[in-house]
Amino acid sequence: MAERHTRRVLVLNGPNLNLLGTREPEVYGATTLADIERMMQEKAATLSLSIEFRQSNHEGQLIDWLHEARGWCESVIFNPGAYTHTSVALYDAIKAIELPVIEVHLSNPHARESFRHTSFVSPVARGVIQGFGAFGYLMALEAAAQF
Amino acid sequence: MAERHTRRVLVLNGPNLNLLGTREPEVYGATTLADIERMMQEKAATLSLSIEFRQSNHEGQLIDWLHEARGWCESVIFNPGAYTHTSVALYDAIKAIELPVIEVHLSNPHARESFRHTSFVSPVARGVIQGFGAFGYLMALEAAAQF
Amino acid sequence: MAERHTRRVLVLNGPNLNLLGTREPEVYGATTLADIERMMQEKAATLSLSIEFRQSNHEGQLIDWLHEARGWCESVIFNPGAYTHTSVALYDAIKAIELPVIEVHLSNPHARESFRHTSFVSPVARGVIQGFGAFGYLMALEAAAQF
Amino acid sequence: MAERHTRRVLVLNGPNLNLLGTREPEVYGATTLADIERMMQEKAATLSLSIEFRQSNHEGQLIDWLHEARGWCESVIFNPGAYTHTSVALYDAIKAIELPVIEVHLSNPHARESFRHTSFVSPVARGVIQGFGAFGYLMALEAAAQF
Amino acid sequence: MAERHTRRVLVLNGPNLNLLGTREPEVYGATTLADIERMMQEKAATLSLSIEFRQSNHEGQLIDWLHEARGWCESVIFNPGAYTHTSVALYDAIKAIELPVIEVHLSNPHARESFRHTSFVSPVARGVIQGFGAFGYLMALEAAAQF
Amino acid sequence: MAERHTRRVLVLNGPNLNLLGTREPEVYGATTLADIERMMQEKAATLSLSIEFRQSNHEGQLIDWLHEARGWCESVIFNPGAYTHTSVALYDAIKAIELPVIEVHLSNPHARESFRHTSFVSPVARGVIQGFGAFGYLMALEAAAQF
Amino acid sequence: MAERHTRRVLVLNGPNLNLLGTREPEVYGATTLADIERMMQEKAATLSLSIEFRQSNHEGQLIDWLHEARGWCESVIFNPGAYTHTSVALYDAIKAIELPVIEVHLSNPHARESFRHTSFVSPVARGVIQGFGAFGYLMALEAAAQF
Amino acid sequence: MAERHTRRVLVLNGPNLNLLGTREPEVYGATTLADIERMMQEKAATLSLSIEFRQSNHEGQLIDWLHEARGWCESVIFNPGAYTHTSVALYDAIKAIELPVIEVHLSNPHARESFRHTSFVSPVARGVIQGFGAFGYLMALEAAAQF
Amino acid sequence: MAERHTRRVLVLNGPNLNLLGTREPEVYGATTLADIERMMQEKAATLSLSIEFRQSNHEGQLIDWLHEARGWCESVIFNPGAYTHTSVALYDAIKAIELPVIEVHLSNPHARESFRHTSFVSPVARGVIQGFGAFGYLMALEAAAQF
Amino acid sequence: MAERHTRRVLVLNGPNLNLLGTREPEVYGATTLADIERMMQEKAATLSLSIEFRQSNHEGQLIDWLHEARGWCESVIFNPGAYTHTSVALYDAIKAIELPVIEVHLSNPHARESFRHTSFVSPVARGVIQGFGAFGYLMALEAAAQF
Amino acid sequence: MAERHTRRVLVLNGPNLNLLGTREPEVYGATTLADIERMMQEKAATLSLSIEFRQSNHEGQLIDWLHEARGWCESVIFNPGAYTHTSVALYDAIKAIELPVIEVHLSNPHARESFRHTSFVSPVARGVIQGFGAFGYLMALEAAAQF
Amino acid sequence: MAERHTRRVLVLNGPNLNLLGTREPEVYGATTLADIERMMQEKAATLSLSIEFRQSNHEGQLIDWLHEARGWCESVIFNPGAYTHTSVALYDAIKAIELPVIEVHLSNPHARESFRHTSFVSPVARGVIQGFGAFGYLMALEAAAQF
Repeated sequence: MAERHTRRVLVLNGPNLNLLGTREPEVYGATTLADIERMMQEKAATLSLSIEFRQSNHEGQLIDWLHEARGWCESVIFNPGAYTHTSVALYDAIKAIELPVIEVHLSNPHARESFRHTSFVSPVARGVIQGFGAFGYLMALEAAAQF
Repeated sequence: MAERHTRRVLVLNGPNLNLLGTREPEVYGATTLADIERMMQEKAATLSLSIEFRQSNHEGQLIDWLHEARGWCESVIFNPGAYTHTSVALYDAIKAIELPVIEVHLSNPHARESFRHTSFVSPVARGVIQGFGAFGYLMALEAAAQF
Repeated sequence: MAERHTRRVLVLNGPNLNLLGTREPEVYGATTLADIERMMQEKAATLSLSIEFRQSNHEGQLIDWLHEARGWCESVIFNPGAYTHTSVALYDAIKAIELPVIEVHLSNPHARESFRHTSFVSPVARGVIQGFGAFGYLMALEAAAQF
Repeated sequence: MAERHTRRVLVLNGPNLNLLGTREPEVYGATTLADIERMMQEKAATLSLSIEFRQSNHEGQLIDWLHEARGWCESVIFNPGAYTHTSVALYDAIKAIELPVIEVHLSNPHARESFRHTSFVSPVARGVIQGFGAFGYLMALEAAAQF
Repeated sequence: MAERHTRRVLVLNGPNLNLLGTREPEVYGATTLADIERMMQEKAATLSLSIEFRQSNHEGQLIDWLHEARGWCESVIFNPGAYTHTSVALYDAIKAIELPVIEVHLSNPHARESFRHTSFVSPVARGVIQGFGAFGYLMALEAAAQF
Repeated sequence: MAERHTRRVLVLNGPNLNLLGTREPEVYGATTLADIERMMQEKAATLSLSIEFRQSNHEGQLIDWLHEARGWCESVIFNPGAYTHTSVALYDAIKAIELPVIEVHLSNPHARESFRHTSFVSPVARGVIQGFGAFGYLMALEAAAQF
Repeated sequence: MAERHTRRVLVLNGPNLNLLGTREPEVYGATTLADIERMMQEKAATLSLSIEFRQSNHEGQLIDWLHEARGWCESVIFNPGAYTHTSVALYDAIKAIELPVIEVHLSNPHARESFRHTSFVSPVARGVIQGFGAFGYLMALEAAAQF
Repeated sequence: MAERHTRRVLVLNGPNLNLLGTREPEVYGATTLADIERMMQEKAATLSLSIEFRQSNHEGQLIDWLHEARGWCESVIFNPGAYTHTSVALYDAIKAIELPVIEVHLSNPHARESFRHTSFVSPVARGVIQGFGAFGYLMALEAAAQF
Repeated sequence: MAERHTRRVLVLNGPNLNLLGTREPEVYGATTLADIERMMQEKAATLSLSIEFRQSNHEGQLIDWLHEARGWCESVIFNPGAYTHTSVALYDAIKAIELPVIEVHLSNPHARESFRHTSFVSPVARGVIQGFGAFGYLMALEAAAQF
Repeated sequence: MAERHTRRVLVLNGPNLNLLGTREPEVYGATTLADIERMMQEKAATLSLSIEFRQSNHEGQLIDWLHEARGWCESVIFNPGAYTHTSVALYDAIKAIELPVIEVHLSNPHARESFRHTSFVSPVARGVIQGFGAFGYLMALEAAAQF
Repeated sequence: MAERHTRRVLVLNGPNLNLLGTREPEVYGATTLADIERMMQEKAATLSLSIEFRQSNHEGQLIDWLHEARGWCESVIFNPGAYTHTSVALYDAIKAIELPVIEVHLSNPHARESFRHTSFVSPVARGVIQGFGAFGYLMALEAAAQF
Repeated sequence: MAERHTRRVLVLNGPNLNLLGTREPEVYGATTLADIERMMQEKAATLSLSIEFRQSNHEGQLIDWLHEARGWCESVIFNPGAYTHTSVALYDAIKAIELPVIEVHLSNPHARESFRHTSFVSPVARGVIQGFGAFGYLMALEAAAQF
């Protein structure tokens, strides 16, 4: 892939991800969200990407940020947390903004409770990465570099 | 119907409706939400109604506004967007405020994805208008003038 | 909307609607079907529409009338009554005739028995109006005037 | 149970509970949320507990408060209202904070609409109290005094 | 029960019952519909009842006759045949006419195909008699004599 | 039907029927179980039948009595109460004893809660009588006189 | 197969098939029902069959014709249209008449909406032919020549 | 709450609860049923209540005791054990006796196997207490003191 | 396997098994329960096992016997009959007693009615033997000799 | 249809069809697969078709043959046997090869076990022929001659 | 049972059973498939049986072997592994060969994941043995000696 | 990540993937499987990985290869194609071999037919990558380099 201008990526994190590293470490590991942001910043530099990293527990806030993303970024890396399984509104938002969205999950939802087997985000995501822990965010960056 | 004092109507718009006119035009048309507000203001004048027009992507904000509506308006025209299909909290809010609520959808949910075939708002709405595009809001105003 | 020639609208009423005004008044009100026809004739005159008003308890008769409508009218206002919930044949008929069909229900089916929550007519209707009682027919006329 | 230091309890109330006393009194009674807070403050004093009492219609706000509770209180009494039935995010939040959460409902959800028969909060709650009206909050305080 | 004037009962038979006696005798027996009418006429005479006996394969015709029954009879004995399992329109018709309707089936639907286990007529019938063959019609007459 | 020897009928009543006349009179009426026994004894006399009348709240006891019935009676009239909807063991017992069993319900289960719409007794019953109140037991006697 | 006398076949067409050639040509093709009748008449002549060709939108009419067929024909070719998916009454009628019935569909229902995947006619049909357009009627004639 | 006469409470325990303290201690704890009775007797004394404490593994016995309770007590505290999930007969019994019934479970059924998520007792219970172990019985006593 | 002391086995038979040999012989064969006991006694002698053989139609009685078995036997061979498919209480009882339970069915439930395809006993049984008729009890004895 | 060059047809038979003629003759008849091949060869000659006839019990082998068919034949006649109901891989293979596939079943799956009512092959087949026994293969040849 | 000629038994093992002893020992134990074959050979000798022992991961191969078994053996002991839950083709094969098949599972499928609760083999097996580990194969041999 | 010895990765491709590049290019793109192998070989070299690349349409072959992989490789990259949705045997195989398996899909199954929304491979995969086309295989290599 040829050299390109720096492109911007919004990295969006949904509910409870702010607790990462302190919450159920047997499922999610000990890495904090700040650790992930740092790893992504380093990796992004090598890929000519710049990232904007955010987290919110509010479904409405996540929608607002997705809308706003149309104005300034080229792709979105999104870990929607629990809203993955319940939010038709996020489905609509992603469909509406027409930006490529890469869905990332730290753990593998299919290996957990049955209510995590349904996703409203996957049908409108460009691609999905599940179960690779924090490393999945870096894989998503590589994918974002393709768009 | 006899002449009456000006009555107030809250027009409430749910998630992603702020993108109207730019989002999936083959489903929702090119009219913006501002266009709809203008059309409604004109129509309201002819019906001795005054309207207050709002939009939010936050489920909690929509609930707050519904609660508040008890103090100052006589009916609500509500396009709950995607929350239609998932929000028991809106069901409770509408039931609680005991104002007539008219549910409006631009498109016809029954002609779309199956998860749009369920509505938590319809069972507590006074009436439902679906699939007439922006014109549906004007029809709702005519209905509101009956209450 | 500009002045136009008189356009014809078929108003079709399904099973049991002939009993209107005498049947479960707490659900359907005291207005009779003849009352509704009269109200519609008056309203139609103001919208440059002429209406043909019919009722049948026979699914096959309703299909015959829908077929025939292709030859002489521009839109259909249809209250399919209980056939709403069971008739794939009406679904096919509406899809086949390629006329805009406006589905009207006096009451709000979503606030009633669960077997009324499914509609075979809605997916092929241009728009749906539910729960406004007889007034819903007049709203449908306004919508028909748009086509 | 032996004498202990004053322990802090967060009392959290979900959507529409601010309308208590004015909303569907045949289901929820005439007691207001302020009445409940007052009753709890009195009871708490007798149990060497201090309570912090809050309400929000915003799912995200409830999650934020649950997270924050880890820093300053020993248990949570939580009436999640309608979010009980739809919020995987609250399920995750309660699991993550590892504080004992006592779920309280004024009415008995099992005696109401079928969509109230599912709870995402119950599987992660320490205990559940349903159907005792405002008195259920006082029972919850007694239970909280055990932890 | 005291002596009374002759009361009229409509006996209504749905689709395929005209074939009785020739159709699947292992399920329905060899008695014809004419035999049943004769047995009922005899029995009715002893109960001061007069009966009007009809059969149609047309759902719409059965609805028409139910409507019409309001004008001249006091109760209806109804074997809706296969429409039992599919007709919301008959449900509505019976509810609307407010006459006591006694549902009769020759065989026991619960001992047959699973699609016969659902009935749209039973919820609005005054009572149900299943599985007694032609004798069930005579039992229904005794019940009708009670109303 | 020709004159016959006195034949014996077991009349079996399941759980909670001992409360008849005091329990939910709007559903079951004010007649007591003793009243029903008396009415049946009188009617049985006119039909050359003798009846043995029993009630138990114990599923096992009802099974024991059904087994025992093989030795001394020709048919069973059975109101299985709530066990109708849950007891595979009664299904097996009735199938095993090979006596004709007439299922009777005072109310119409199809007009009540959905868990009453399933019956494990109906598929193995000779016939079913529902919704005629105490009179249904007398109808069952007439049917029993046919066997 | 040996030479035989001319045998008669009833060709029955259900709801909306009268619109064939004008309705959704991308699904059903441009051939009209009259074209199909003509093709069948020609083919029948070569097979020593004579055909009687009918269409109705009325479920009851189709049942009447099936009943009547017992008197004069040896087999039935039946395209039940939308009644395929909803009519228990047709299921009963076909089972009752004990004539071989060959079910034909122009399109392949399994490749269309999910409510077309259920058939009440197939379980009682001798054979089923789907998706070959008008040619399927000719294939059915060949099959009918075998009976 | 004002001083009152001693009121009587029936405490009813369903199947397998006699094994308490020896059975799956990780789920139910080490307290025996006799321990619970002793704790309740002590607590009851302070609330001017007298309790009658019983256990049976027989569904029919539990029904008999509930019926009998109408004659001598003011409320029932009921841990129905596994019959919670399968007994329509207990549902009927509780509804029939019209005494307030408080449902208690030692563990939280919602955190266990899915067949424990359904309760036939909850819809007719005045209130429900789940997951507080033996302490839940004492909470139920406090609630019983309110009736 | 080494020589051991005589070990005791409880053989428990559920509802309707007392009718064995007289009930539906095409499903269950002509062997009576007494025959099976005799065959088992003979076989047990050769395996250094002593057996206690019981039958009851009462779910509560079966639970009582399972509880009591903890005191005097090393394993249980259990044919729960129809309670297999409905009894959560037996599931709990088997789990609680912590004795190995071998589930035996004379016929193969999977080849019968669909309501026999669910078992509440299998998940807590050590092993399951189905479809070998009376011989299955002897196989179970061999398995019991392993524990 | 005009004269054409000889065209090649792959006739593919799935699992257990090699047993034809010996297996459940009441369902499948006494004709063997070799008989069918012979009948087809004769018929093909009259239609300017040449056929290649194969059978395998291996899903993977059937997929391999379908892939390979792209290189040398113009259409496929396919009886997928039991894989009809379970194989998404065959669905994908047929969709991928873009050859017209005619699905044939000897018996009528809709008249058999419910797990035979689902087909993964039908949605991607050009047409479906069911229930005509071996004659169905000849009908399929006639259809193949159309492509 | 009387002395007989040596009879042949095919012992068939499905997918992943070749890994036995190395795979999930907490579920399947440490015994290898070769160990089981050895134990069976020894046991068979004492029962005048000779066994042929095979394993394959290929569904088609298992079908081929079942077909072939018709020629040379009297019964089949079959552990179908995971194909138990998905293979309609094995259902058909077993039904077709008309040999008695004894289904064996090392573990108890009912105590594992829900997708293991369905079996396509059980309905056509003569008998089923589950949960006795390797010993179950020996029990199956004893049963095979009965046929 | 530190320098390591060359580690071996098995890359396994399931049914129909051999057609890649020629099959439904709008879904899967024009890249062939050989292209993917070449891209992976190049990428692997940079990551000190060596890859073995295979494809089969046979479920049994894929299982054999997974078993064999235990002997010589450290991780598996697996695109199970259509077997993803139906194969319990692959679930068992992956669980048994205890190697990390990375599931890859070219397209996003959640955006396609509903039968592709279930995966038997995901619950036992270490991670899942969906929807990135051929690039997803390279992402999987990066992940494999982590193990």
